[in-house]
Amino acid sequence: MTDTEKSQRHQKRMKRHKEVVDDKIQHADKDKGLLLVITGNGKGKSSSGFGMVARALGHNMRVGVVQFIKGAYSTGEEAFFRRFPDEVEYHVMGDGFTWDTQNLDQDIASAKKGWEVCKQLIDDPNIDVVLFDELNIVLKMRYLDTDLVLADIAKRAEMKHVIITGRGAPEAVIEAADTVSRIEDVKHAFRAGFRAQKGIEL
Amino acid sequence: MTDTEKSQRHQKRMKRHKEVVDDKIQHADKDKGLLLVITGNGKGKSSSGFGMVARALGHNMRVGVVQFIKGAYSTGEEAFFRRFPDEVEYHVMGDGFTWDTQNLDQDIASAKKGWEVCKQLIDDPNIDVVLFDELNIVLKMRYLDTDLVLADIAKRAEMKHVIITGRGAPEAVIEAADTVSRIEDVKHAFRAGFRAQKGIEL
Repeated sequence: MTDTEKSQRHQKRMKRHKEVVDDKIQHADKDKGLLLVITGNGKGKSSSGFGMVARALGHNMRVGVVQFIKGAYSTGEEAFFRRFPDEVEYHVMGDGFTWDTQNLDQDIASAKKGWEVCKQLIDDPNIDVVLFDELNIVLKMRYLDTDLVLADIAKRAEMKHVIITGRGAPEAVIEAADTVSRIEDVKHAFRAGFRAQKGIEL
Repeated sequence: MTDTEKSQRHQKRMKRHKEVVDDKIQHADKDKGLLLVITGNGKGKSSSGFGMVARALGHNMRVGVVQFIKGAYSTGEEAFFRRFPDEVEYHVMGDGFTWDTQNLDQDIASAKKGWEVCKQLIDDPNIDVVLFDELNIVLKMRYLDTDLVLADIAKRAEMKHVIITGRGAPEAVIEAADTVSRIEDVKHAFRAGFRAQKGIEL
């Protein structure tokens, strides 16, 4: 095959691809406040949520964040997004709870307190996007009732986006969601002896 | 089982879990500039990369970004991170290339130009983390030679982190990486007729 033939074949294939994509785009024309779920065992769930926070801020939207699990650690994302108190309402719940506290009652109380904060963000008409980081873990542990949580989320304003991260998303959450991504852990530096790196995991 | 028994059982299980996790953490004690790859068909690859950018900024690190594909669109992440020119060196390459230009030579030229910018960021001692957004697509299309790209990345300073996103990561990239996540598309609002939403996909 000559270079010209190769180039023409490429052009033809790309044109067909573009037509397919354009057609799909034309038929996806509705807007809606989405429920997004990022789950699975791989690295990147929380960071994906925080990337969407950055994206939303780029569109001058206001964002609410509730971090359920990482209360015991200081994280880069918290330090960074707390720079913008007028744009991001940032909450860290708990005390690094679940396996660190080893106290079921305290964990449940922390989770319930956390959900009250989430509900305020869901109801706040000035907030466009909410991120409930690691909520799936809390639901999986049954610290909160998944049906009640989903009912509260369903009552949100039409254009409000809700992002839920954390491994082990319950089936009911996946069913209720508009978009679900499952992150597979193909390989992790941790298993090669490298600890969590600032700017990557922390 | 009484509530007390339940609580004790929980405490015991959590204690065991904590011991396992603590043990793993103790044995992962090395530091290194990681090569991270986020691939797969699901939603969240680029946003995960941008979440790590936010995280790095929270640790006062300096970041370089090269976006290979989205040149034709204005995105929230670009608008947001361009707010911090002293902390983020932000480049958008190409012209929304691949299926929109339908010109193989032009696409290859754009890709090569993009990689020159990447190499400068790799070599810049003032940059701690680089994000090459959608580079996998460029490699998959063979617009760049994967072996050459990996050789350039391998030459980086010891503590520099490199994040590569995009579907279709070549096998050689996965092999060279320290951490690889594959995002599975479980469900996408697009297929239910909802277009890309600001702050979520854009």
